[in-house]
Amino acid sequence: MPSLVHYPLDPASRLIRLMCAEYGVPLDLEETKPWLREEALLAINPAATLPILFTDNDLPIVGIMATIHAVEDFYTPAAVGGLFPADPRDRAEMWRLVEWALVKLNDEVTRYLIEEKIAKRDQRGATPEPSVLRAAKANLAEHLLYFNWLLASRNWVAGEEMSLADFALAAHFSTLDYLGDIDWSKVPAETRDWYSRIKSRPAFRTLLNDRVVAMQPARGYADLDF
Amino acid sequence: MPSLVHYPLDPASRLIRLMCAEYGVPLDLEETKPWLREEALLAINPAATLPILFTDNDLPIVGIMATIHAVEDFYTPAAVGGLFPADPRDRAEMWRLVEWALVKLNDEVTRYLIEEKIAKRDQRGATPEPSVLRAAKANLAEHLLYFNWLLASRNWVAGEEMSLADFALAAHFSTLDYLGDIDWSKVPAETRDWYSRIKSRPAFRTLLNDRVVAMQPARGYADLDF
Repeated sequence: MPSLVHYPLDPASRLIRLMCAEYGVPLDLEETKPWLREEALLAINPAATLPILFTDNDLPIVGIMATIHAVEDFYTPAAVGGLFPADPRDRAEMWRLVEWALVKLNDEVTRYLIEEKIAKRDQRGATPEPSVLRAAKANLAEHLLYFNWLLASRNWVAGEEMSLADFALAAHFSTLDYLGDIDWSKVPAETRDWYSRIKSRPAFRTLLNDRVVAMQPARGYADLDF
Repeated sequence: MPSLVHYPLDPASRLIRLMCAEYGVPLDLEETKPWLREEALLAINPAATLPILFTDNDLPIVGIMATIHAVEDFYTPAAVGGLFPADPRDRAEMWRLVEWALVKLNDEVTRYLIEEKIAKRDQRGATPEPSVLRAAKANLAEHLLYFNWLLASRNWVAGEEMSLADFALAAHFSTLDYLGDIDWSKVPAETRDWYSRIKSRPAFRTLLNDRVVAMQPARGYADLDF
């Protein structure tokens, strides 16, 4: 069975867990905290990024770009449609929004919240910096406006069919939701409906059962009717 | 002819120019400064990132992930080997190092130098912040150690064959070199030799002719024997 070195609330790890669940690939999960930069992690990946996938031939596949392509190459089931659209134009739109989630949203929102709310718990005496939390939440509000603008005119984030872009964005949403940083009462209906649809997929179940030690998820995190 | 919206010293734009030159695809170049966030750019790409590729069917392909895949899908010549290795293990190593260059190196080094040395010239009264320049250069020294460690045991960045990882890293090197941020007298022989080999490729010529208004490249930037 392939195994994944991950952190439960790391959005890139969540994206690969979602892809594998969607494709029916069981995963052994091995947890690490990348910010601790433990020797065992650095020996495999000096960048200390996640996820890292070990396939059956035991070679590590390191980082989100490599793992996305490996899962797509090795594990797309022949019987069902994959997460990459067949039309090149739809694929370009998918990659644009995958990059938006993995780079821009991560850079402006998610990584700050993970650093302040989770990684700092492992630094003696460190507490979340309110100005950073405020900036991240203000940035998130801008992102939500854009996603809602997209979802007002399409079924899914990158077009009429569900794609990897939905999973990439949902991976970030699910982390932000766990941390209590999405105020659903203020999220417009289109985005809320989209997240409800993707959260109801069987592939999502594994994420909804995640619990981080000494940090309960926000109310509604695991509810399909949130 | 396909056209590319780019900025001459933007490493992601340079990567696509290198790919297209290597594959024999001529490009119309249209220059923009993404930090000015001009309306014409935002209308195509609200993220204000580069590059943006217009193929013959006139649809914009937006961002580095989408353009890499589009160039590979549309333009890999049948007659020559492409920049993606055939073996999945080699491809995984390629993606790991493409991500290293485009995300980690960009995040820790290149984007700060572009912001401080180039973008700030368009802000009245702004000057480069010495502490940021120092931090970026210290980070670059760490990256160089790692690249040299890789290149001490392999011909090319990701293995025995040249790949997209070499082009991604060389795109960043060439921007850093233009800005005078690589002190070649201190760069170990393996890395210098690697850059010399890739800089000598015909695909590189277009980059070496770039000039930014009121900013001459560092001495040796265009020399193949630097």
